[in-house]
Amino acid sequence: MAPSLPVALDAMGGDKAPAEIVAGAVEAAELHGIPVVLVGRPDDLAGLNTGDLEILAASEVIEMGDDGARAVRTKKDSSLVRAAEAVRDGKASAMVSAGNTGATAASALLRMGRLPGVSRPAIATPIPIPGSTPTLLLDAGANAECQPAWLGQFARMGSTLAVARYGIERPKVGLLSIGEEPAKGTSLTKEVYGLLSADPTIEFIGNVEGRDLLSEAVDVVITDGFTGNVALKTLEGSLRFMASQVFSALTATDEAAAVSGPLLDVLAPLAEKLDPETTGGALLVGVAGVCVIGHGSSSPRAIVNALKVAHEMAESDVPARIGAAVNAGSTEGS
Amino acid sequence: MAPSLPVALDAMGGDKAPAEIVAGAVEAAELHGIPVVLVGRPDDLAGLNTGDLEILAASEVIEMGDDGARAVRTKKDSSLVRAAEAVRDGKASAMVSAGNTGATAASALLRMGRLPGVSRPAIATPIPIPGSTPTLLLDAGANAECQPAWLGQFARMGSTLAVARYGIERPKVGLLSIGEEPAKGTSLTKEVYGLLSADPTIEFIGNVEGRDLLSEAVDVVITDGFTGNVALKTLEGSLRFMASQVFSALTATDEAAAVSGPLLDVLAPLAEKLDPETTGGALLVGVAGVCVIGHGSSSPRAIVNALKVAHEMAESDVPARIGAAVNAGSTEGS
Repeated sequence: MAPSLPVALDAMGGDKAPAEIVAGAVEAAELHGIPVVLVGRPDDLAGLNTGDLEILAASEVIEMGDDGARAVRTKKDSSLVRAAEAVRDGKASAMVSAGNTGATAASALLRMGRLPGVSRPAIATPIPIPGSTPTLLLDAGANAECQPAWLGQFARMGSTLAVARYGIERPKVGLLSIGEEPAKGTSLTKEVYGLLSADPTIEFIGNVEGRDLLSEAVDVVITDGFTGNVALKTLEGSLRFMASQVFSALTATDEAAAVSGPLLDVLAPLAEKLDPETTGGALLVGVAGVCVIGHGSSSPRAIVNALKVAHEMAESDVPARIGAAVNAGSTEGS
Repeated sequence: MAPSLPVALDAMGGDKAPAEIVAGAVEAAELHGIPVVLVGRPDDLAGLNTGDLEILAASEVIEMGDDGARAVRTKKDSSLVRAAEAVRDGKASAMVSAGNTGATAASALLRMGRLPGVSRPAIATPIPIPGSTPTLLLDAGANAECQPAWLGQFARMGSTLAVARYGIERPKVGLLSIGEEPAKGTSLTKEVYGLLSADPTIEFIGNVEGRDLLSEAVDVVITDGFTGNVALKTLEGSLRFMASQVFSALTATDEAAAVSGPLLDVLAPLAEKLDPETTGGALLVGVAGVCVIGHGSSSPRAIVNALKVAHEMAESDVPARIGAAVNAGSTEGS
């Protein structure tokens, strides 16, 4: 077997870039054998321990506040754009960034291109479920306004990813709405309900609600990028809020604080399971290559997990499988 | 001062109706001096302790699964419709139901009518914030698809309610979107952003995100009824999920269970503060009368709180204040 291509990591993206991003890369390479190429400004990387990692020089940086598509057009020598080009040019197997989400998606879309037959790529974000496989939510923000057929494709892409990433045999696909009945929701959800019901390639279980995102009853939740992003941030915010409230309660009284040790011991694994850092990040599905989008606050551990996911998804040829799923039974396609 | 009109309570609505609904009504009347009239099937109420409460007979019941508007048209002698008519006819000051939300809103809308100048009523749901006033989210589900001008009115109605219900002097109004920048979101949110920015009668603080729903940074969050309902159910589901995970963790090991007593003592008040039962329920704003929509799972305590809120909102003439706010500076209106 030929040695694997490296994963191109945007060393400049993320709240803790480049130091903690690079630390994660070195750990992934040295401890987990993941091949990685760092993409970034050589001057910024010079003072850091980059181990044996190759560096692909890029002179510009897309900032968190930059407009995604515009930044990709104007900063052609940015680490994000160069990482996407490395995948396009067959020099890297996948790209990973914890930087500007919109710019990451735009880099991948504009440099790698869409898979044939795909109308719009979508962000598939895993929601960790303790004791079970994560639930994939898509679109989590790539397309604020969607046409019904796009959501039909999101269902096939998400379903394929749930098989590839989590080994779920026949993922249960739900449509995010405001009631179980098919007639509940907007004109968009009602039309998508019809499309998903008629698609023999997926296991559609009907409408699901916001509260089902954290349940084991559904594996893939389909929605437009506006609703998906609002739901995801509401969920993350609520879990974080509750965690901080519980931890303050545990230290609120001397009596509670005195006995909180054993409790923190059991709560820590729970926090770990719910931590977005352990999920390995979101995937941009529908582009002609693997693109993993990490949380902006990614720590070295989050980067290790994101690199692992990127490597695995490239090794198991997920983009090709997604393309095949989207075009199955279609007379269009490439 | 003339004796207050009673609040009309749908005794048949809610998962625990009629027994626990009636128990809440009796408690509200006897312990808190809230005048209440029970609306429901005399046969179903006969075996219950209804104290000194007057009963307004209604022979039909709108079930949880019924379609809201259709049920109001076909079940003209239902407890919900009769409760709304009691308000319309000046026999009750307000209506309260823990039953079918859509049918409650439809009853109020079709029997009381809209306030002059109001395009669409909205459901304003309070989200409890420990240590602060609740955040009002509207629309939480009355209108799945909205026009920009409706959301402009929701902002004025929500702001007026936040003043009346929580005594907030100048409520901070945010627009739910997927980024702080005005250009983030859908064509709907972008247009509403412009409307709210130009409205001198409200304190618009810009876009807010899902994670801000539980923060003190915003008092009133404006969105369409689809997004609002998804966000609300996601938030409730996430808090409930986290609470159940924490409580299982507290009993997961013998060591944890042995010391969990003092922790449960400090966690209980937190659970209490976050419990939707303590908020008194959602208000349908924009109709010509007070309509409080309780949680389907309402306990007697939730009913007591809902009756208190309904009574207070009627006493302080909230519908008239909302109507005035919607029409302020307008050349239309009545």
